[in-house]
Amino acid sequence: MLRSTLIPLFVAIAGLSFSLHAQDFYQKERKKWLAIAEQTTPKLVERLKRPLYTVTAQQDPQSFQGWKVQKSYSTDSLFSNSMKKQSGVVVDFGEHLTGFVTFTIKDNGRAVDAPIRLKFTFGEVPAEIAVPFDPYKGGLSRAWLQDEIITISEVPKTITIPRRVAFKYAKIEVLGSSVYSDFKLTDLFVKATTSVTQQASALAPATPTLIKQIDQIGLNTLQECMQTVYEDGPKRDRRLWIGDLYLESLANIYSFKNHQLTKHCLYLLAGLSYENGVAPSNVFERPKPHPQINPLFDYALIYNVAVKEYLEATGDKQTALDLWKVVKKQIEIPKKYIGEDGLLDYQKAGKEWWLFFDWRNGLDKQVALQGVVIWAYKNTYQLAKMLGKEKEVSELPTLIEKMTNATHQHLYDAEKGLFVSGKDKQMSYCSQAWMILSGVASKEEGKKALLQVFAHENAIKPGTPYLYHYVIEAMIQVGLTKEAKDLIVNYWGDMVKKGADTFWEVYDPKDDFLSPYNAYLVNSYCHAWSCTPVYFIRKYPQIFQQ
Amino acid sequence: MLRSTLIPLFVAIAGLSFSLHAQDFYQKERKKWLAIAEQTTPKLVERLKRPLYTVTAQQDPQSFQGWKVQKSYSTDSLFSNSMKKQSGVVVDFGEHLTGFVTFTIKDNGRAVDAPIRLKFTFGEVPAEIAVPFDPYKGGLSRAWLQDEIITISEVPKTITIPRRVAFKYAKIEVLGSSVYSDFKLTDLFVKATTSVTQQASALAPATPTLIKQIDQIGLNTLQECMQTVYEDGPKRDRRLWIGDLYLESLANIYSFKNHQLTKHCLYLLAGLSYENGVAPSNVFERPKPHPQINPLFDYALIYNVAVKEYLEATGDKQTALDLWKVVKKQIEIPKKYIGEDGLLDYQKAGKEWWLFFDWRNGLDKQVALQGVVIWAYKNTYQLAKMLGKEKEVSELPTLIEKMTNATHQHLYDAEKGLFVSGKDKQMSYCSQAWMILSGVASKEEGKKALLQVFAHENAIKPGTPYLYHYVIEAMIQVGLTKEAKDLIVNYWGDMVKKGADTFWEVYDPKDDFLSPYNAYLVNSYCHAWSCTPVYFIRKYPQIFQQ
Repeated sequence: MLRSTLIPLFVAIAGLSFSLHAQDFYQKERKKWLAIAEQTTPKLVERLKRPLYTVTAQQDPQSFQGWKVQKSYSTDSLFSNSMKKQSGVVVDFGEHLTGFVTFTIKDNGRAVDAPIRLKFTFGEVPAEIAVPFDPYKGGLSRAWLQDEIITISEVPKTITIPRRVAFKYAKIEVLGSSVYSDFKLTDLFVKATTSVTQQASALAPATPTLIKQIDQIGLNTLQECMQTVYEDGPKRDRRLWIGDLYLESLANIYSFKNHQLTKHCLYLLAGLSYENGVAPSNVFERPKPHPQINPLFDYALIYNVAVKEYLEATGDKQTALDLWKVVKKQIEIPKKYIGEDGLLDYQKAGKEWWLFFDWRNGLDKQVALQGVVIWAYKNTYQLAKMLGKEKEVSELPTLIEKMTNATHQHLYDAEKGLFVSGKDKQMSYCSQAWMILSGVASKEEGKKALLQVFAHENAIKPGTPYLYHYVIEAMIQVGLTKEAKDLIVNYWGDMVKKGADTFWEVYDPKDDFLSPYNAYLVNSYCHAWSCTPVYFIRKYPQIFQQ
Repeated sequence: MLRSTLIPLFVAIAGLSFSLHAQDFYQKERKKWLAIAEQTTPKLVERLKRPLYTVTAQQDPQSFQGWKVQKSYSTDSLFSNSMKKQSGVVVDFGEHLTGFVTFTIKDNGRAVDAPIRLKFTFGEVPAEIAVPFDPYKGGLSRAWLQDEIITISEVPKTITIPRRVAFKYAKIEVLGSSVYSDFKLTDLFVKATTSVTQQASALAPATPTLIKQIDQIGLNTLQECMQTVYEDGPKRDRRLWIGDLYLESLANIYSFKNHQLTKHCLYLLAGLSYENGVAPSNVFERPKPHPQINPLFDYALIYNVAVKEYLEATGDKQTALDLWKVVKKQIEIPKKYIGEDGLLDYQKAGKEWWLFFDWRNGLDKQVALQGVVIWAYKNTYQLAKMLGKEKEVSELPTLIEKMTNATHQHLYDAEKGLFVSGKDKQMSYCSQAWMILSGVASKEEGKKALLQVFAHENAIKPGTPYLYHYVIEAMIQVGLTKEAKDLIVNYWGDMVKKGADTFWEVYDPKDDFLSPYNAYLVNSYCHAWSCTPVYFIRKYPQIFQQ
């Protein structure tokens, strides 16, 4: 999740100044946490994978983004014939893979007497190897697009492209070569990596085929994003965001059970927290671990919930106790915005912080903000109890009650039967979901509220699979289980039908070209926050078995 | 020197088949020669060089190829300010350099949150950093053009571009970066290399300034081409051709005196000779030494002359004796074409071999072929005598006499006072030069012949500095010393006046855009065969001191 142009830049600047003059809150613990993060860095599992065959990309209005691929000829033929005559060839690796690509060039007859210029283009979806990247009008760096131009000065030569790529397809174009000599591409492989070490258990045989497919593609997505951290996407941004970590770790609990990775990430985030104590919205691992100075209100609070879920899944009290100082600090964030009336000053908070919740133009976040704080406080209090620390957060029950009451009183529109947000009393999926998850809405109110927004054409729908996760969780909590299943079958199942190998960062059934970055080719097509059907299907199997 | 489209491809194919079915003539010696070549590989001298300042390229009809550069601002400013705001900046290293370029990228404020895509373009002359390379219509590989696109996934990062480049100017364009973060280019340097270890002596103080400049630029050219072999050009083709070796080693004898490099190259060529015994026209050093299968008649014979010159300069009889077997084999090449009348069947030879002499469309090579064979035979016989081996080549004096007489009888047009070549009795600089160097022409005849072609508007002029070398040597031999000096002053001096830092592969005073490859940007602008003013100025100082 990269900020897009939707997010005003002043937030970033506010965030920066915000951390500059604070003393280091974790002065004592930072080094230790980073050392534990380093010790727990997962060893990646490597697989050498070669392409299965060549394909041709064909325009097809029925296919996702207007492109499909068709099997063409064998890699035996690719590897044994003139590469000059195969310029533009596309190979299909048969599955989404993440890693470093290596290729070998050899003479084809006479010694190669001039350097060779090759362009490799890697694509997660067919459009990426069919549609030119330039001119590029996107809001994110052009460098995210996965094309690399390589000069080969000596032949024979084996070269590893010095950039990790995430792809299923690779296109190889000859941009320069001698007319007096020819060459062959005699090998091409990727050293594909993941930190998944143990396969997920099989679903019950009775599970319908489409559900099995959704689960499998969700597992593929998760596996590809599980590297040395929970990445948001192996193509983009390739880093650890708290929001993605939370959803991935939930899916992981019910599938690959690599709890060590979760522990590693929680420590890394703790060790790289801002000096004022706020958990960093996201961190980079390389060249050495460092945070992006980009504080994000809701993500900081979600850190606490991720710690709680980790403890519940593992029983690892030592880690939770060790990170308790971070958890305790996050609950301070909302306090300065909570008014006497129990309502957050969401406008002030929105000026001083980046509030995320979803990519959706015009989404009013007042209700969601109330919801996420109450939800995080409740989870934090549960965590405190599990650790015997409830005295240290004894203010939480009162705060929760006060905020719950205030939210219900001021933001519930009893007449309409749903929660409304902001001055314009906006109706959104987002608001209802957070009211259910926070417990502000009773089960009945929540069910009604959801059904209301589903029925309202003008209600603001989720813009990302990230928010769909919270909506579905809320639906299940209020008993809309069939509807939850249908949503997964319709939304994620639709991606399956459109040929997804992994789930996409952004998906609008009515617009294959939707992009928060003004460039659909830069979207990530293997994105952590879209993997959560794995969690739902495996946590609530009874919902999905018919 | 790369074959251009001027040379028919069948020659290459003939050359290939030519070597395929022979037994290895040097089976016993090859390994030993290659081992000695390896032992004598020169250690490169490295210098770290940073740019002096930034420049802007400006269109100027008076400047070479229509472009000049103007000093802009300091590298301190370049290295300390936003690189996003400096996209397209051009830096000037102040001199031609050959080596690997390293740069460092750092954050400029907030942590860089997206990969960066940079394009580096390296130029020997201003046009290369001012004129777009694409679309490219040249006959040689597009990959010779020195532009590299680099993705930087982690910041800070120091990267060495994995391709050796030859340049004075570097342009740096930002093709992709985040709008949310900025970066600086905090360092940029080249590890420049040469195998020159000892400076050339100073010219006599009385030497005119322009001659000193020509000498210095010739030395720069030679130094840049002297790497682990005598390269033809450090930009292109970066390899050892016999023709270039010969001219470079001559210039080296009178300047840097790195005779070890000459020895290394002579052994490398011997060790990589074709199986039928012919010395290879050119060889590649990497990834392991190998020849191009591309036999070249005149170059094979020039190998012998290079050995003789090496022996004369060094007195290293051991090397010359060790390589004698190769020398002896080269004199066999012409024999099958020498008719009863003492004339070579140049048409048959031209079908079976690549005859070079010069890049010039329509040049008839009959006379030059007679000349180069007689010249090489004479030099070989001198070499034999120096080694006490004249009995082994006792046929040479008779052959030389017979060919000399036949050439004079059949190809000298006494009426016109010059040598005419082929069916159309073509008049060319090339023919007269080779008749003088071979001794077919008497001194008087040679002088007259040269003055005749100089006066004939339709006479075929040299197309390259390579042939100019032989013409000037011939002029000096027949006493046209003032004219020889004037030619150097006019031809090379003209390059100096046009801003050359090193001498160019191709130069036509009337056409800055001439290219044998249909793309002037792919021409080499630091080319070995253009360095020989160094040889003339230093071998014949009396000619140049006024």
